[in-house]
Order: sequence, then structure tokens, then C-alpha cells
Amino acid sequence: MCFLYMPHTSASFVINESFDPTAKIDMEEFMERLVPENQPWFSHVFEGSDDSPSHMRAMLTHTSLAIPIDGGKLGLGTWQGIYLFEHRTRPHKRRVQIRCLGIE
Amino acid sequence: MCFLYMPHTSASFVINESFDPTAKIDMEEFMERLVPENQPWFSHVFEGSDDSPSHMRAMLTHTSLAIPIDGGKLGLGTWQGIYLFEHRTRPHKRRVQIRCLGIE
Amino acid sequence: MCFLYMPHTSASFVINESFDPTAKIDMEEFMERLVPENQPWFSHVFEGSDDSPSHMRAMLTHTSLAIPIDGGKLGLGTWQGIYLFEHRTRPHKRRVQIRCLGIE
Repeated sequence: MCFLYMPHTSASFVINESFDPTAKIDMEEFMERLVPENQPWFSHVFEGSDDSPSHMRAMLTHTSLAIPIDGGKLGLGTWQGIYLFEHRTRPHKRRVQIRCLGIE
Repeated sequence: MCFLYMPHTSASFVINESFDPTAKIDMEEFMERLVPENQPWFSHVFEGSDDSPSHMRAMLTHTSLAIPIDGGKLGLGTWQGIYLFEHRTRPHKRRVQIRCLGIE
Repeated sequence: MCFLYMPHTSASFVINESFDPTAKIDMEEFMERLVPENQPWFSHVFEGSDDSPSHMRAMLTHTSLAIPIDGGKLGLGTWQGIYLFEHRTRPHKRRVQIRCLGIE
């Protein structure tokens, strides 16, 4: 097994279609519509209007993943890729923790 | 521990109430309302109007799960069951990867 | 690795910002708006109007988590905390399953 962990609160993982780039475009657009910025009821606004929605988008996607390893390779499905989904507007440097474990 | 992995991009796992069948009906209806099909802003439409929403629904639910094993049985809660949530309209054959690991 | 499992269908885990308490307030408010109670189309209403939404909120967040351990401590990010997110209105007693595994 391969364990991926995201030690950040405004970026997260998504495993999904990575063959056709339009799939990624729609997933990003969907998250922007589902969790809109600049809502009048936000209370967590000290770091800017994209901060609170970034935590909500992280909450709805994935901070930890467990992926099988087959023959030394990640056992992703044919069309799957692993996205690091950055939820803040300006670029951030992100660190990902990876642990692998052999299961006999 | 038992690790479940879904190597597909338009089906996913949900662990939730499986005792009363109305819970499942509401979860399906909710996902159809939260992620509606046929939106004019979809760009990933080559495979049909249910394809892009299926990736969004997979993104919001679960591609990998880690479930404890107790006394040789999955340590699910009393009311829990594991759903394979098919997000496409027409039936698909799905393959699930399962790995089990004993922790002494 | 540390594995957390929630054997309940109306409570779940969220790993997210725990430094500024307004982040939590916004996440709760967001979930109440995203998954509103008392919808006329609910069929799972036997246990009250907050029961079906609690399953939907659990579905969108996390029942199982895998967190790395570094030097005997959970490898959470600087701003991260682990929330047990109670989705029912009245207080419930919740049990969480924790398994730890050393990876050499």
C-alpha cells in the first residue's frame, strides 16, 4: 500500500480522470461553483476571501489516500491520476507525505 | 486493516446507513441535486451528459477506504454498510481492489 | 501510520484548520447550507428531520483516515487538527477506532 498525506489545510488530493484535460477543467469549475468565494456570512476572512472556501474545498475532497501497489507500481485505474488540488488563488509551495508498505 | 480501492473514475465508495433503505434513496437523490447533469458550462461532454457529473460525484465521495478488522470481521458500525456508488447512468462492470493487513 | 475509523453514520472526521476558531464556524455553517434539513423530498425521516442530512454530511466528509506518524507523534500539518464532526442536532456518544502501525 502507498499512503499519501497532505499536511495542509487549503490543498487536498483528488484521484480522478486525468486522460482528457476537460475533466479537470470541469472539476475545478464545479468546486468554484459549489463553494463560492466572498460569501457575506464568512467569518474566517483574515487571510483573504479565498481562505475560508479553500478549507471547505479541502474538507470535501481528500487529505489522506491509501493506494494499492501492484508489481512495484501504483495500482491506479486506467484513466486515473492523482491531483494535488490547490485551493488558494496565489501559488503555494506544498509538501506531501508518502509512506509505502509491503503486504505479503 | 482492510483497504478498499476503486480503480474507476465514475464510481466510488460510500460507507453509510444500510439498514433503512430510505437512507440510500435520499443519498442518491441528494447527489443528483448537488451535482446536476447537463449543465451548460460542462466542457467534458464527449462521453455523454452523465460523464462529467460522475467524476464530480466520485471526487466528493471516496476512492480509497481503510476499515479496521476485529476478530476476522470488518469493524463496521452497527448501521453501516459499504456502498459501491455507480455514478454513470447505464450499468458498468466495476472491479474493486481489496488488501488486508494484520496489525498485532 | 495511524488509522482512524468512525463506526457511525451521522458523525464523521474532518482534518482541517484548527488554529483560528472562525475556520470551524465557517465549515459548520457551510455544511448546514450545502445540506439543508427539512427538505420536502426526504424519504428517510423516521428519526427526525436532521437524520437524512446527517448521512449526507457524513458521506461528503470522512469515515476513515490514514495519518502518518513521525517520531511517535501524528504528522499533522502546522495548522491541522482532527475534528469529530457531529451531524445530529442532539448530543450523541461516539466511539472512534484507532489502529497504529509502525512502518520501518
